[in-house]
Amino acid sequence: MPTYKAPVEDVLFLLNDVFHLERYNNLPGFADATPDVVQAILAEGAKLCEEVIAPLNRVGDQEGCRRAEDGSVRTPSGFKDAYRAYCEGGWMGISAPAEYGGQGLPTTLNTIMQEFVSSANLAFGMYPGLTQGAIAALYVHGSEEQKRTFLPKMIEGAWTGTMNLTEPHCGTDLGLLKTKAVPNGDGSYAITGTKIFISAGEHDLSENIIHLVLARIEGAPAGTKGISLFVVPKFLLDGEGRPGARNAVSCGALEHKMGIHGNATCVMNYDGAKGWLVGEANRGLNAMFVMMNEARLAVGVQGLAQGEVAYQNAVAYAKERLQGRSLTGPKSPDKPADPIIVHPDVRRTLLSIRAFTEAARALVLWTALRSDVAHRSEDEKERQAAEDHMGLLTPVVKGVLTDLGFDSAVKAQQMLGGHGYIEEWGMSQFVRDARITQIYEGANGIQAMDLVGRKLAKDGGRAVMAFFNEVGAFCQESGADEAMKPYVAPVSQALGHLQQATMWFMNNAMARPDNAGAGAYDYMHLFGLVAMGYMWARMAKAALARKANGGDAAMMDAKLITGRFFMERLLPETAAHLARISAGADAVMSLPAEAF
Amino acid sequence: MPTYKAPVEDVLFLLNDVFHLERYNNLPGFADATPDVVQAILAEGAKLCEEVIAPLNRVGDQEGCRRAEDGSVRTPSGFKDAYRAYCEGGWMGISAPAEYGGQGLPTTLNTIMQEFVSSANLAFGMYPGLTQGAIAALYVHGSEEQKRTFLPKMIEGAWTGTMNLTEPHCGTDLGLLKTKAVPNGDGSYAITGTKIFISAGEHDLSENIIHLVLARIEGAPAGTKGISLFVVPKFLLDGEGRPGARNAVSCGALEHKMGIHGNATCVMNYDGAKGWLVGEANRGLNAMFVMMNEARLAVGVQGLAQGEVAYQNAVAYAKERLQGRSLTGPKSPDKPADPIIVHPDVRRTLLSIRAFTEAARALVLWTALRSDVAHRSEDEKERQAAEDHMGLLTPVVKGVLTDLGFDSAVKAQQMLGGHGYIEEWGMSQFVRDARITQIYEGANGIQAMDLVGRKLAKDGGRAVMAFFNEVGAFCQESGADEAMKPYVAPVSQALGHLQQATMWFMNNAMARPDNAGAGAYDYMHLFGLVAMGYMWARMAKAALARKANGGDAAMMDAKLITGRFFMERLLPETAAHLARISAGADAVMSLPAEAF
Repeated sequence: MPTYKAPVEDVLFLLNDVFHLERYNNLPGFADATPDVVQAILAEGAKLCEEVIAPLNRVGDQEGCRRAEDGSVRTPSGFKDAYRAYCEGGWMGISAPAEYGGQGLPTTLNTIMQEFVSSANLAFGMYPGLTQGAIAALYVHGSEEQKRTFLPKMIEGAWTGTMNLTEPHCGTDLGLLKTKAVPNGDGSYAITGTKIFISAGEHDLSENIIHLVLARIEGAPAGTKGISLFVVPKFLLDGEGRPGARNAVSCGALEHKMGIHGNATCVMNYDGAKGWLVGEANRGLNAMFVMMNEARLAVGVQGLAQGEVAYQNAVAYAKERLQGRSLTGPKSPDKPADPIIVHPDVRRTLLSIRAFTEAARALVLWTALRSDVAHRSEDEKERQAAEDHMGLLTPVVKGVLTDLGFDSAVKAQQMLGGHGYIEEWGMSQFVRDARITQIYEGANGIQAMDLVGRKLAKDGGRAVMAFFNEVGAFCQESGADEAMKPYVAPVSQALGHLQQATMWFMNNAMARPDNAGAGAYDYMHLFGLVAMGYMWARMAKAALARKANGGDAAMMDAKLITGRFFMERLLPETAAHLARISAGADAVMSLPAEAF
Repeated sequence: MPTYKAPVEDVLFLLNDVFHLERYNNLPGFADATPDVVQAILAEGAKLCEEVIAPLNRVGDQEGCRRAEDGSVRTPSGFKDAYRAYCEGGWMGISAPAEYGGQGLPTTLNTIMQEFVSSANLAFGMYPGLTQGAIAALYVHGSEEQKRTFLPKMIEGAWTGTMNLTEPHCGTDLGLLKTKAVPNGDGSYAITGTKIFISAGEHDLSENIIHLVLARIEGAPAGTKGISLFVVPKFLLDGEGRPGARNAVSCGALEHKMGIHGNATCVMNYDGAKGWLVGEANRGLNAMFVMMNEARLAVGVQGLAQGEVAYQNAVAYAKERLQGRSLTGPKSPDKPADPIIVHPDVRRTLLSIRAFTEAARALVLWTALRSDVAHRSEDEKERQAAEDHMGLLTPVVKGVLTDLGFDSAVKAQQMLGGHGYIEEWGMSQFVRDARITQIYEGANGIQAMDLVGRKLAKDGGRAVMAFFNEVGAFCQESGADEAMKPYVAPVSQALGHLQQATMWFMNNAMARPDNAGAGAYDYMHLFGLVAMGYMWARMAKAALARKANGGDAAMMDAKLITGRFFMERLLPETAAHLARISAGADAVMSLPAEAF
């Protein structure tokens, strides 16, 4: 049975030593987040995840969700109690606005908790995760009345949220969307259509489910410019704002999936369900993007989270399993064999995961802090820079962290040999669960196109130039420090590769857009490696400083070694990405479709 | 519902144009394999796989195997009939020795059929696959009486075979093996112990199951030098050689696995079961290696096979699914959107799979032909060279083809987006099934250590030098041909990386074996890339020749484009592998075990 321990120490190192949380004290909500408070909050969150939510992971996988004939859906045993504990702990609204009942603490804290929950139980974490996304969308685009009606109940967790985009014939290309909205004449609309792959579309955790639904108002333009966003509660509210009559929306079926069995993935049928417009008509995609961007970052965190928990269980096995002898002579001569952690290839595998997860966690926190700045700073320039960063890094975090999170789960499973393939050991579930993160919220190929086709050139390349400047300046400043050289030199070189690739697109993709399309995926990963390399350089600097101050030598040494491993083993991939990008679209595009 | 079409055309191109099958006519069995006969055999095999075996793939996944209380095991619906059809077609013994009822045709033909069967239904293919491995082991190491007793029945498929190595506390490290063999005094032994992960250990397909079991004879030395091989039939044979009394061996449980549900993976309990020594006492590992080497090549083929069938289904989806518009303007203006195969990233993904599978198939056939030479040539030098090749390439085929086969299945699944994650589309099964190939028959990390720790230095590096010479000579010869330059130049460079890496091990691993261990996995993949690059160069040469002769321009153009894609997109990875290898073991080994 797999176990989980939340990486609280590592998070505190990042918040305090690397990102200096105290420097953000001028932002609303941050002054309350003193080091002591943060530590206490994280300890509390860790406990909930380790002791209540993680033990339900396997139960959720085995039982799955069950739909009754009346369309109601039962979540796996224990999920209801765990959800109640989560809500009672105030986790749903930890970073939500105080005016609607939230605690107003930094988003960064919520992001950390998202990692812990997603490691403990990915399928479970999606119920609150989608609710938080819906809260964000309603907060930004809902009317004052909608906010007053829905947000307090959602922030306390009594009501949950969903996002309804996909239809059988359209996922990525929402312009093809068919679900219809017909005005009822009373300000509401009658929504009719079928939505598929709706996570948490129906379940028994909450008193009401608040669906955010994309639909096309009768007579609206074709394509993406005729899509509007509606709020459609499962139960219509009575005069006192309490769930009353059942709305005409129901779960038609549950999907049978490779993983995340504990989450109810529903076919949702809207049969003239009553809904209300959120934001402007025909601007629904714009409104939904608030939720999608939140969700994309959260999904990146899920990828990291599955890599982390898979790593922990692979390490536990590698320390216990006795098999073979070290190449340099027995290390446990009193035992029939050495633990497999003595073998270089086992260590290489484990370090590959760890060098990724620790950098990914840093990247996530860096981005989460920027999100706080974007939402809370009073300085417009600072806000803009933070928003630039978010736009640029969102596809990278989503695409790269989920690809590497999945790879990490596969690598961790491999450490257990045949036992990894047997369900009772739990490693298979990490792999099967992690797999969805590469697919949903925009498949990773779409993230790559978002990065290359949209984010790079936006505002004259302002965001990417700022990123280059920041990484370049850090390398410049730290390059003179002898102890930093093993970190700075490789990152400088990798940054050079990224800049060359960017330049290659500028020179070759205008005239031939397929050159961008054919190189986009490699570019996304190249970008991710540079960003994670930069995170390692900053962590190394912080580790050297803390060590110099006499703190936690063992933990800091581990950081420095893992960082070196990243430079030597993961970062060299940037040259291969650059070579692939520079090869262009010729070989990719010249095969006729029928020859595939 | 996924479908499968056996790649007969591609195989014929390889046999006729690339490897010139007719040049092997001096070997026994090859004279019968005229082009017409081969084509007819492959067409027949393709039909069986496409129409009978493939349609049972999903059934097998969903139903799985069921164990009754009496320990008997039922295979999924339809498996029995399909197995009968396979045996009646003579496929079990197609390459088996004629003296025991086989057809004596080239092993290469059997290898091709293994690919087809493993694409159609991996779980099903394991039943005959293990039987063929057991036939090989008994043929090489069994006594004349054992051969007469078991081989004819196994070759006709009436009896199946298994290999019993793993025990709960030992997989890779067989020296820890505890199963005991006590002489009964009549030439037989009483075998007692528990074996786990025994594929096809118990089932309802055959009249008898012939277990090959590793055990330790009472008083034998500890470690691997005290292990013997025994043949243990499920039913003891009566006076006329027919299955009679039940032997004391039974299936204690079936494992619940991530995939290959259609194959019975058994815990086998031996309670004083009657067995007979195969080959010499205490030389059991040596005897079992015949079966393991056969199995390792077959598992490499399974990896390729899953990549191939996943590719075919991803292509079908990419041609049908309408979503978005081409970057260069609508390609299907009459439809609401273009098929996704217009998108460069979709093509890049599909070509990544295909550039691998076609090279992998060539590598497999090249190696299979060498296997035929090794077993059938009368020229001792030729035999030795072929055996050198087999020894060197076996870990590469097993390790690299299964890693890339799994990656290919994952990539293909990704093409279907959310539908790829839903079980009814079948892509999840390809991923779940392919995953085992990286684990069983020696996890891929073990293959890497076999290659670097054993095969490289064997006989003074004779095998690897021969490989370098062959690839180098080909590049030299073909380098002057302008049309071949896009293939030869990258392969030459990649070969240089491989030679540098080999040299690095020679200079750095003697004094510090961990340097070999830390670089072994990258070396295995570097080797695989060079070998596949060489295959592409040979295929390009053959394609240019056939095109010059006016043959199949469309198919040959596709070969040439896919080969270019390989050079531009897959082969650049060799530099990254070399960089990682040259980084050595420092960062890998310096983290204390407790710091993981």
